[in-house]
Amino acid sequence: MSEHTIKAFDTELQELVRKVAEMGGLAERQITDAIAALIKRDTAQAERVMAIDTNIDALQREIEEKGILIIARRQPMAVDLREVVGALRVSNDLERIGDLAKNIAKRVVVLDGEFRPNKVIRGVEHMTDLVLAQLKQVLDSYVRRDVAMAIEVWRNDEAIDAVNNSLFRELLTYMMEDPRNITFCTHLLFCAKNIERMGDHATNIAETVHYIVEGRSLPDERPKSDLTSFARVPLRK
Amino acid sequence: MSEHTIKAFDTELQELVRKVAEMGGLAERQITDAIAALIKRDTAQAERVMAIDTNIDALQREIEEKGILIIARRQPMAVDLREVVGALRVSNDLERIGDLAKNIAKRVVVLDGEFRPNKVIRGVEHMTDLVLAQLKQVLDSYVRRDVAMAIEVWRNDEAIDAVNNSLFRELLTYMMEDPRNITFCTHLLFCAKNIERMGDHATNIAETVHYIVEGRSLPDERPKSDLTSFARVPLRK
Repeated sequence: MSEHTIKAFDTELQELVRKVAEMGGLAERQITDAIAALIKRDTAQAERVMAIDTNIDALQREIEEKGILIIARRQPMAVDLREVVGALRVSNDLERIGDLAKNIAKRVVVLDGEFRPNKVIRGVEHMTDLVLAQLKQVLDSYVRRDVAMAIEVWRNDEAIDAVNNSLFRELLTYMMEDPRNITFCTHLLFCAKNIERMGDHATNIAETVHYIVEGRSLPDERPKSDLTSFARVPLRK
Repeated sequence: MSEHTIKAFDTELQELVRKVAEMGGLAERQITDAIAALIKRDTAQAERVMAIDTNIDALQREIEEKGILIIARRQPMAVDLREVVGALRVSNDLERIGDLAKNIAKRVVVLDGEFRPNKVIRGVEHMTDLVLAQLKQVLDSYVRRDVAMAIEVWRNDEAIDAVNNSLFRELLTYMMEDPRNITFCTHLLFCAKNIERMGDHATNIAETVHYIVEGRSLPDERPKSDLTSFARVPLRK
């Protein structure tokens, strides 16, 4: 690339990374708001979450468009190319996190019963805190290009899976104890699954940070402990 | 582009589209096999589905790499650029369909009880047939660049949502009738949700076909009838 092209590329790339960071902030906010709406059963807040998802989708399309244009115009190579591709991948994961938050918000509308199992609510809050911490750390690692920090996120996903597994069993148990709990618990099962999947997207972003910096994928299969697909809860006699 | 570049671009694009079509075939196969494994409770087949998902993921990475390289090397414009971006988008949706099939396969391992509600099984089969028909049609529309065909797929997603809604209510009812059904029905709820989401990805692909050919997004919000997030089932007295 010529001196001029390098400078133009750098400016465009910075702008792209800035947009991705903005999108990351929005996604974090959506998670917090969706869970707050869920716990307080705040329908108005849930509706705001659903509405704001459109902005996240629009940002993703904008990042895609801009990224593709940079590749076509500047023909970046090696790490420069990975930077642009990385921005596209991260924005893709953030868009999916936004979708998951929206899905949780949708369910808030129906959770109007009186059943509020405190232990489960605390579990959901705890899991959300873990996911938010993971997302915050991975977005920091993205902005700083800090691979060690990213790998830590990638490794820590197991803790989220563990909370989800115990929530899953707990919810099934409540359902078995009293059929009046079934509708509520089913919706919470889906919410918990959505939060767990947000965690997966945080680890995807960690993988992208590794790819940008190192130019190759992470070596091993990520430790995976979401066992809810395999869960069985014995009936209490 | 020069004569030579145009020819090189055409060859590379054809190769890319061929890969996407190959990936589409794999995704269709994974859906069929995952549901067959689910209905026959065939653990060995479920494990094959989980293993093959790696191939789909690899194909997606390959398509992404090749697509990006084409953009950087050939600097395509207008419809040519949309063709390449479209291939990336479609392969992204196919990868997610593969993931959803894998998620269903994971649950097969635990479905070993004796409870087999025929009506629900038939519902799952019916929903799968609808999704497979949608996916087949949208892949055809992609290969032929047939927007009318794509729009039809986009419109028909409502039928899948309708089946999912009635399955959801049915499963909740079985759970309320007998707590021994709860674990099984919960897994089926997640499977049904996964199938419904495959349908969403088929409509995403339809939107991409429209974007490639017309150069803009589809005009209105897609009709959406997945109401399971809002479902409540009254207790039988």
